[in-house]
Formats: sequence, structure tokens, C-alpha cells
Amino acid sequence: MSLNLQTHTEHFTNPLYLESGRILEPYDITYETYGTLNDDKSNVIVVCHALTGSHHAAGLYEDENKPGWWDGFIGSGKALNTDKYFVICSNVIGSCFGSTGPMSTRHPYHDEYRYKFPVVSIKDMVKAQRILFDRLDIHRVEAIVGGSMGGMQALQFAIHYPNFAKKIISLAATHATQPWAIAFNKVAQEAILKDPDFKQGYYDPEVLKEQGLSGMAVGRMAGHISFLSHESMREKFGREYKRTDGLYELFGKFQVESYLEYNGANFSKWFDPLAYLYITKAINIYDLSRGFDTLEEALTRVTADLHLISFKNDLLFKNFEMKEIADALANIKKTNFSYMDVESDYGHDAFLVELEKFDTYVKDILNG
Amino acid sequence: MSLNLQTHTEHFTNPLYLESGRILEPYDITYETYGTLNDDKSNVIVVCHALTGSHHAAGLYEDENKPGWWDGFIGSGKALNTDKYFVICSNVIGSCFGSTGPMSTRHPYHDEYRYKFPVVSIKDMVKAQRILFDRLDIHRVEAIVGGSMGGMQALQFAIHYPNFAKKIISLAATHATQPWAIAFNKVAQEAILKDPDFKQGYYDPEVLKEQGLSGMAVGRMAGHISFLSHESMREKFGREYKRTDGLYELFGKFQVESYLEYNGANFSKWFDPLAYLYITKAINIYDLSRGFDTLEEALTRVTADLHLISFKNDLLFKNFEMKEIADALANIKKTNFSYMDVESDYGHDAFLVELEKFDTYVKDILNG
Repeated sequence: MSLNLQTHTEHFTNPLYLESGRILEPYDITYETYGTLNDDKSNVIVVCHALTGSHHAAGLYEDENKPGWWDGFIGSGKALNTDKYFVICSNVIGSCFGSTGPMSTRHPYHDEYRYKFPVVSIKDMVKAQRILFDRLDIHRVEAIVGGSMGGMQALQFAIHYPNFAKKIISLAATHATQPWAIAFNKVAQEAILKDPDFKQGYYDPEVLKEQGLSGMAVGRMAGHISFLSHESMREKFGREYKRTDGLYELFGKFQVESYLEYNGANFSKWFDPLAYLYITKAINIYDLSRGFDTLEEALTRVTADLHLISFKNDLLFKNFEMKEIADALANIKKTNFSYMDVESDYGHDAFLVELEKFDTYVKDILNG
Repeated sequence: MSLNLQTHTEHFTNPLYLESGRILEPYDITYETYGTLNDDKSNVIVVCHALTGSHHAAGLYEDENKPGWWDGFIGSGKALNTDKYFVICSNVIGSCFGSTGPMSTRHPYHDEYRYKFPVVSIKDMVKAQRILFDRLDIHRVEAIVGGSMGGMQALQFAIHYPNFAKKIISLAATHATQPWAIAFNKVAQEAILKDPDFKQGYYDPEVLKEQGLSGMAVGRMAGHISFLSHESMREKFGREYKRTDGLYELFGKFQVESYLEYNGANFSKWFDPLAYLYITKAINIYDLSRGFDTLEEALTRVTADLHLISFKNDLLFKNFEMKEIADALANIKKTNFSYMDVESDYGHDAFLVELEKFDTYVKDILNG
């Protein structure tokens, strides 16, 4: 069966009340759907994206040569089976792929928000999605699934909208962002802020699309380190040198250096730097316990079946951070949860790359 | 007994033939000594420094408020006991604390080398030290000890000057720099190169001493991540916020962010960016096996007792990299070696910080 890929944007004129006390008004949410919504709207699965992801999670547009970021996971016969489920993935607010973010037009002034954009939290991103689903007349879903920042959103759904999803599947995430991950974000943020071409936030986005932003390229290189692992880099690159005669040239390059350069430069042409600052901020301040006395107290609100999947060699969000959620659930005598630590050397990006290691597990969860 | 701290600089007019085929001529080596050389010059211990270290390994100068980088390890009654041993630590060539490096005057042109400085390797750094010791009429030493890049130097001594030291102690190092470490160096190098104040290598060093170099500050932040670990950062900083009311401010800061900012900015005022590029290059191209068919073949040259110390949670040079050296030594039936993996959560910097975890072991090695 066809993926039935569709993209839509919904416009909202009511204010979105943010965790900070500020409001966002009006705002747009862009989303993609795959599969077909059944008559009683009972076959919905929500997918949440990571830091630099978007609503484009699967399928291929005509002008593309790379499919959506979780294409191996969403589709006919795949873990999120579009023959059966209607899958929705929306671009988070604060991002730069259609939903309202710092480079959106600030009503009614006709200029861009830039630094006037309010800090949004993961909880705010989830709230905006909940409002989108209301608009779509979807009030209960089969499951919410996400990895990394997507996994954080899934957990926030579980706590703040406990009756919205039957099942929550959170991969490669954490209950509160730890200083190691904040430090990586800091390197990227500082590299962006210190780049004169960033023009203290008043850059011309069209120029950056052409030329990129070297500060963001540098930051992305640091990001790539955190997404991989010592072992996966060794496997992927070893000590291969680009040109063997250039070993004693100061700017001679190892393969790993070329890889980082290429991906860094590329990234800075397709991702907006202010969106990067705002979304990394949202990740940094993410803490499931905020507003509660303890993580346990936050988790008492959960009614959905909660499934936690970590990856053994994830260096960004360590596997024991997910285990801490499982332990907290056990402490409060919850029984409708599971925790799996996937054997993997790959690093954080395993949730995007090593699908075969957990897709059967996810299928089993969805089949009950 | 007093530390008897002395600093000297030796000037060499003979050419130093480098691994690259290029030569360095003339050159200086600045070094420090602690303790007293005995009459038959049989009580020498050589200490080798890491990337941003210097010859100033112990003791305190009048204008200082922080002692040398291994002060807890070198001194009266300490692991490297200056009541008994005469300890020498020299600044590596390519560095910026007195020995000849890229900002030294290029003879006979009276300008600085800058990019005309040749790429030096760890083997070259060791060769220059060996020539210094010849000048000092020291032809055999009790031990060579170093951590990180200092540990690489110790291993190069073992292979290329097999009769020079009785004992080699290498900590927190590797046999060949792996892509994970190269990637961290890459982030720092790119951050420096892309900073307009670096002026493509033609910066005014006096200006940088005043103002710092934000690109190098960013690079150093990435470095600090690689020196620590997830666990030590969590222990040190947790999720403490600088000002609790600033959580929703885009530029509000976690403690870990302040720490990185402070150390990054500070570093860029006391370390030379071209030296940073050259020394990280030396680390990247470091490979004990170069010039041999295998690591085993390189290690057959070793005659000194070889002692390898790794740290369990070292994320820069993983403990298994040191284990691979031990395994190679076992494969070629060497018996005069030892390998210890220190229980530690701290990360790479454990060799500088958690001295109590290995100083007795080092004392025992030195006492035979």
C-alpha cells in the first residue's frame, strides 16, 4: 500500500500560554501524515522529532534524494505500520520547517521575532501538538513514539496529558538533561553566537542558505561527536587519511575530519541558527520533575503504558538515565511499564540507524 | 627538603631532522628541574607534559597562585620523590612556553614562523628531548613518566630510544590516536581557523593575550568535555542554575555553562592558537606503529620495563587502547611490563586529579 504522505499547516489564532508565562499568538503548526485515518479516528500514532529533525519523518518528495528521517521505521509493514495506523508527525514550535519559530513573522509588526521569540520548553512543544490534535478532532491516540528530544516529548505527553495516549514509547532520551549534554549544546551555541556572520541574530537567512554559517558548522561537528561513539567512529573511519602523502601537512586530513567538515558545512545551510539556539535551550531546561517535588511524583500522573528504550553506548543521554525512570516507576509500584537497554556500540544515533535492534520490540508493544 | 625548582633554556644550533623530512634550526628547549642531580647522574626521572601543559610541572613561582600541573605528584615524599630523584620536565617543541614553536623567531628572517613552522610529531618532540639530555650529559635515566600526550612521548621513548630509560610509565594515553580524539581536536582547530581575529594566523599575540580569541575559547570548551565524563560533570555541576529566576531567559546559564565559558575565555589568553594547531596535529598523527608493519613489531624494540596505566572512564583515550598495548606485549612474549586500569569515574583528567588512585603504584614501580 502507498505511504499516503501528506503535508499540512494549521494556523491558530488563540494564544498559546507558555511555561515561561509568555504567550505565542498567533502560531502555525506544520505536520505530515502517513497512512489513512479510520472512521472512528482510533488508529493514530504520534511521532515526535529530535533537535534538528522535522515533521518530514518518512517518504520521499519528488525533489528529494533522501527520505524522511525515520523512513525505515514508518511505512507499510514497518514498525509503525501505515497499513494499519495513521501516523502524524508535527514540526515543533521553535523550529524552522513551517511551525512558528524565531524567524517567523511577528504579528502584527511584520518583522521576524528573532530574539523577541519567547523561550519554549519541551512541555510547550507538547502543548502545541495537543492543541493541533484537538483541531483535528483527535482526542485519544494509540501511541506516542519518539527518540532523543522526541523521546522527551513522549514522556511529557505521558505526564501532562495522561489520558491522551494508550502507549508511550520513549527512546534514547532522559528524565532531565544532564550537564554533559548541556555542555555539548553550549559549544554549539557559543560557536554560533561568536560568529560575526551571525550578526548578533540579525543575519539575512537567504545569505546563510547560500553561504552557511561557519560557527554553526563548528557546533554541528561537536554535535556529531555526541551522536556517535568512540567505537562507531573507529569502525567508520579508523585512521584513514584523505591523501597519504599529506600526513605532515598541517591541513592534511583524516577521513573523520572530512566527514565532520562536510556535515558541518552542509548543516549550516539547511538549519536556522536562531532555531538551534532556542531548541537547544528547550532541551537544556527539560526536566520531567519541574513543578513536582520529585521524579516519582511526576510519574504518578502517568496512566499510559510506558516503554523506555535506551542504547548501551549512548554517550549523549546515558542508558542509566532511562533506567532511573524505570527505577522511579518501580518505586511508585507502577506495573504497566517496560525498560529495554539495547546492545549497541553505535552511540546516540542508534535510534535512527540500528532500527533492526528494536523494531520488533516496538511492533510487539503496539500489538499489545 | 626544598623542591629546588630551577628553570633553564638551552639553545641548539645543529639542525633537528624531523620525521617529515624538514629541519628545525636553530631551536631552544626550556626545561625545569626539581631535586638534585647526584654525582654519577643516576637519579634522573623525565616527566613529559600534555597538550596544553608546559615544563612547569611542580612548585610555585613568586608571582603565581597555582602550582605546576603535577605538583601533587612531584616533590619531597611524593610519588616522584625529589629527596631521591632529580626530575626534569621540558617544554615540547611546537609549544609556546619557551621552547621553539610557531611563534618563535624564524632564523635568519627575524619574523615569526607562523605557518612556515614545520609539522612536528610526538617522535620529534622526543628526539629533541633526547638531544637536550645529551647536552646535559645524561645518557640513561631511571624512568620516563607522562600522561595523555606525555604518555605518548613516554611510549615513543621506549620504542625509539630503547636503552635510554630503565622504566617507562605511560598514563591515560594510547598507541595511536583514534578518530574520536581527532574529532575533538578538529572542533577546536576549526573554531580557531574560522575566527576572524585569528587573522589566518597573522594575529598580534599581544592583542590575544589581552582579549583572548573566542574561537579558541569555543574549542577549549569542547576540550573540557573530552577531559571529563558524564559522571564527573553530573557530580560537579548537576543541573544547578546560575540564577533561578533566569530559567526562561535564552541566555540564562547552568553552572556547567559558566564553567565552560570561564575556562574557555581564560585559556584563550594564555595559550597560543598556532601552537594549539601544531600540537593537536602532532597528537592526531601519533601512531606508535608508523615505520613498522605492526604495533607488535614496534614493541619488540622495547627493552625498558613498560608500565601502562589507564582510567576506566577516560573518554578521550579509552582504557581498551592501553589494553591493546598490553595485549600486543603479551603476544610478543614480553614479560617486563604491567597494565593497570584505575577504577575511576572522573574521565581523562583523572591522571591530573585523582593522584591518590595511582601514586602508590608508581612509587612501587620506582622502588622496583
